[in-house]
Amino acid sequence: MSITVVGSIAYDSVKTPFGERERMLGGTAVHFSLASSFFADVHVVGPVGDDWTETEMATLARPGVNADDVEHVPGGKTFFWRGHYDYDLNTAHTDDTQLGVFADFQPKLSDASRACEVLFLANIQPELQLQVREQCDRARFVALDSMNLWIDTARDALLRVIETVDCVLLNDTELRMLTGEPNLVRAARTVIGWGPGSVVAKQGEYGATLITRAGFFSLPAYPLESVLDPTGAGDTFAGGFIGTIAAHDTLDEEILRSAMAHGTTLASFNVEEFGTERVSRLQHPEIEDRVNELREMTRFSGRPLPARG
Amino acid sequence: MSITVVGSIAYDSVKTPFGERERMLGGTAVHFSLASSFFADVHVVGPVGDDWTETEMATLARPGVNADDVEHVPGGKTFFWRGHYDYDLNTAHTDDTQLGVFADFQPKLSDASRACEVLFLANIQPELQLQVREQCDRARFVALDSMNLWIDTARDALLRVIETVDCVLLNDTELRMLTGEPNLVRAARTVIGWGPGSVVAKQGEYGATLITRAGFFSLPAYPLESVLDPTGAGDTFAGGFIGTIAAHDTLDEEILRSAMAHGTTLASFNVEEFGTERVSRLQHPEIEDRVNELREMTRFSGRPLPARG
Repeated sequence: MSITVVGSIAYDSVKTPFGERERMLGGTAVHFSLASSFFADVHVVGPVGDDWTETEMATLARPGVNADDVEHVPGGKTFFWRGHYDYDLNTAHTDDTQLGVFADFQPKLSDASRACEVLFLANIQPELQLQVREQCDRARFVALDSMNLWIDTARDALLRVIETVDCVLLNDTELRMLTGEPNLVRAARTVIGWGPGSVVAKQGEYGATLITRAGFFSLPAYPLESVLDPTGAGDTFAGGFIGTIAAHDTLDEEILRSAMAHGTTLASFNVEEFGTERVSRLQHPEIEDRVNELREMTRFSGRPLPARG
Repeated sequence: MSITVVGSIAYDSVKTPFGERERMLGGTAVHFSLASSFFADVHVVGPVGDDWTETEMATLARPGVNADDVEHVPGGKTFFWRGHYDYDLNTAHTDDTQLGVFADFQPKLSDASRACEVLFLANIQPELQLQVREQCDRARFVALDSMNLWIDTARDALLRVIETVDCVLLNDTELRMLTGEPNLVRAARTVIGWGPGSVVAKQGEYGATLITRAGFFSLPAYPLESVLDPTGAGDTFAGGFIGTIAAHDTLDEEILRSAMAHGTTLASFNVEEFGTERVSRLQHPEIEDRVNELREMTRFSGRPLPARG
């Protein structure tokens, strides 16, 4: 099974109460690719500038990641983001954004990328998401992410692309904003009414919730005593989630739940260190061990309580 | 098994986007008692004034609730709270508080209340909690709730009583505030270091997390498409949680997890309608049905994913 992801490739400068890094490899497509490559082959589509080096390419192009569609734009600069977090690690504060080559990005997909069975439209302009969606017309499962900026400024285009996908992943506040519905279950049902069979509400430190036509599933975040840098957690979650879906020939509620557990687990590794540091050296058995821990942490027995008296 | 609860008995006037009620029966001890009475006998200790009527007493004194220690203070008025919620139902906005007889409340426990096996110190002045704790010296399980006001103004007294209890229930923001530790797991471990064997972090619409010396357990809130009034959800949770503990002769991680599920379930019924309306007519089989639904909504299979390649 092969996945294609279209999104940003970036340099991130991040400061948290626990440390800082300058110009780390980052970006939605990067975090997604590293996470999903544990489960399936992934084609990365995104632009870089003249400042892109072999060092970053070596980190990105790990086994399972095909970087042929990483487009070098001569004379341009790679997308750059600078941000910081206070002790409330749920809120990123942006200090600087330089779109660089990302400003005029027009996704160019090779035949191999277009032939993907699974497609992830990371958070980019909805018009571009729609173009990519139309090129990947054989994909059996398509998911998208978005953000408050597009909900505010390109809502119609976003709704058009949502109608063409199987799954929408959004932060829970974005989901409420998109639908105008403060109740999470109703907000998800509204999106499902537009076409997608499933909605994932990302809830930061509280975990994630999956709502499908058939059911409801919720999983806490893996508990960590030390979170160094939450940057990329959402896209790493998406990589574990979509990667798991791609690793199976079929799709049912059970596989979606396993996908949620793998997404949650990958995201937990991501935030343990800065940028891609932890996931870059992650080993597959570590993933399954943590998935098993998560299962144990959410399990409770079936013994019913007798009615009193 | 019998439980004693010491806390407020109140009239609540509440307005939410979905309706409003004037002078409903409310208060921490009331919500706790109604919920816990499904599982054990509960003695309520709290003061009321001349405005207290037979109607409220009839609602409170349901089967399993012993109201002998509801103290009528002649010439006084029952605690009154007026508040409202906007669409963000997680935040209560207080419009008026009249402490009335609660201002000079000195808990007076009958022999029967003092002989309890399980004690819940609802959110009152820590000095009073400590007095009650000392009177109930045969209790095998003692839990307490508190609030930001006491963390701010009576932290030393609060720490003294925390040292004497088995379980602390707090909102997760209060837990962080109490310990000065932004990380939830570390905050809970700090409290456990003070003496209690377990900590419950109440997380509103996100559910609740249990941290013990031995482990970690987290459960989402039961998903509801319609939440009318969250007032009393935390104390109703505590009632289901402590009631379940009281219904068992022993205590282990499995019983604590079942208690979390029953607390979560009771709280979900509480918020479906205003005040005590829903829990007052709740039937035991409805509780077990919803606990089973919660188990199904959090379960995922054990099938491991093969490593790729």
